[in-house]
Amino acid sequence: MSSQEHPKLSATPSSDTLARLAGVIESRKATLGGDPESSYVARLLHKGPEAFLKKVGEEATEVVMAAKDLDHGGDPAKLVNEVADLWFHCMIALAHYDLKPADVLAELERREGTSGIEEKALRKALKREGEGL
Amino acid sequence: MSSQEHPKLSATPSSDTLARLAGVIESRKATLGGDPESSYVARLLHKGPEAFLKKVGEEATEVVMAAKDLDHGGDPAKLVNEVADLWFHCMIALAHYDLKPADVLAELERREGTSGIEEKALRKALKREGEGL
Amino acid sequence: MSSQEHPKLSATPSSDTLARLAGVIESRKATLGGDPESSYVARLLHKGPEAFLKKVGEEATEVVMAAKDLDHGGDPAKLVNEVADLWFHCMIALAHYDLKPADVLAELERREGTSGIEEKALRKALKREGEGL
Amino acid sequence: MSSQEHPKLSATPSSDTLARLAGVIESRKATLGGDPESSYVARLLHKGPEAFLKKVGEEATEVVMAAKDLDHGGDPAKLVNEVADLWFHCMIALAHYDLKPADVLAELERREGTSGIEEKALRKALKREGEGL
Repeated sequence: MSSQEHPKLSATPSSDTLARLAGVIESRKATLGGDPESSYVARLLHKGPEAFLKKVGEEATEVVMAAKDLDHGGDPAKLVNEVADLWFHCMIALAHYDLKPADVLAELERREGTSGIEEKALRKALKREGEGL
Repeated sequence: MSSQEHPKLSATPSSDTLARLAGVIESRKATLGGDPESSYVARLLHKGPEAFLKKVGEEATEVVMAAKDLDHGGDPAKLVNEVADLWFHCMIALAHYDLKPADVLAELERREGTSGIEEKALRKALKREGEGL
Repeated sequence: MSSQEHPKLSATPSSDTLARLAGVIESRKATLGGDPESSYVARLLHKGPEAFLKKVGEEATEVVMAAKDLDHGGDPAKLVNEVADLWFHCMIALAHYDLKPADVLAELERREGTSGIEEKALRKALKREGEGL
Repeated sequence: MSSQEHPKLSATPSSDTLARLAGVIESRKATLGGDPESSYVARLLHKGPEAFLKKVGEEATEVVMAAKDLDHGGDPAKLVNEVADLWFHCMIALAHYDLKPADVLAELERREGTSGIEEKALRKALKREGEGL
């Protein structure tokens, strides 16, 4: 994961990765020629929501397990891998609904930009307190 | 979510959002003065893994519910919001373990760069087939 | 959890617990006088699916965490507690849809009775293999 | 699911199902001759926590999806099936840690018996309120 191994990425390590990946996922749609027989993404998109949403739940569980393992001396790279898997499958879901990771980033940006990144989370926590749940 | 509302972001809508957000989360660590009484992120970091991992599981469930609602005429913005919540809580987990979203992006980049973005997912799917589970 | 504490249960430790609990949950429905202000179950039922399904996802995550902790010397009672929480919230969901734990037990019974308890799981696993996912 | 179809169960529809199923799962342990090649349960037990805990997360997600589908006119039997799958995989986890569904039922019983079934849930909800999360 060092910049050494990815010299071409050193200038923009994080910049367009998600957009580029979203483009790859988009190209796997059946309407664009994606083939369920040869592409994992095309297969999930072809199967529909049940399939990729199940993966979102499964990958979230794997994130939790990798984090717990890390608490007990596990490998940090495992957690990074599982978060990558989770975000990847979220992006497949977004693509199915014609949404983009840029929409997610814009939402995160908006929260930060308008009134502090924690405003929404705090508002929700306070609402939960008020409702007693 | 239009560029209209975020003129300053139009040039790099997705580029540094995650890195900037990771910086905000990092600054909420107790060692850097984060206050659990006034900050949602500081509170989750203070509570530790049980707290923020539980949120990862909960937010993944909310992503699934928002997607199902969308299948039945729901609001796309709801799904974007829930994915934002999920990624946000993943980033709190990453911060706790001194990892960064850039590590996740590098992993996604690596999969794409070395042998196609779907190689790992396909390998895992094939392994699963071979094992009969 | 000792039989000491529950002498009346020693004869049938597991028999009618779920049915009795389902009855309590049923009685918390608004139509039967359940009060969201004084009852946790009434409150969840009043809030609707979003609320109790989110809890199902959250409690499943807690089961996973308690199990991982147990792998590293944690308390078995913690896992028992979390599974109890998960099943309890599943029963609230069942009640909302006018279903009962007896329906779930009958389904488990049916699988065992007709063709072996693992038949369905195996069929699904084999189907998954055939489909390559 | 009618008692018609299961005459032998009509007397005790729910009573010993979980105990009997736990016995079947127990018999699939390698030490008792369970064969990962021919038994789904033996296979999961052989693979260990990662495998069956991942299934717990996945099946919880399927419960949520089936419930959401039911909100939109779906089949109640689907939800019953998914809850059965979830409980079944919880029981595999319990077996791995030498715990039994009877322990879970005793815990549910204990909560009901000592101070009302909702006491613990309410206490947790109130604690959450007090902590502001």
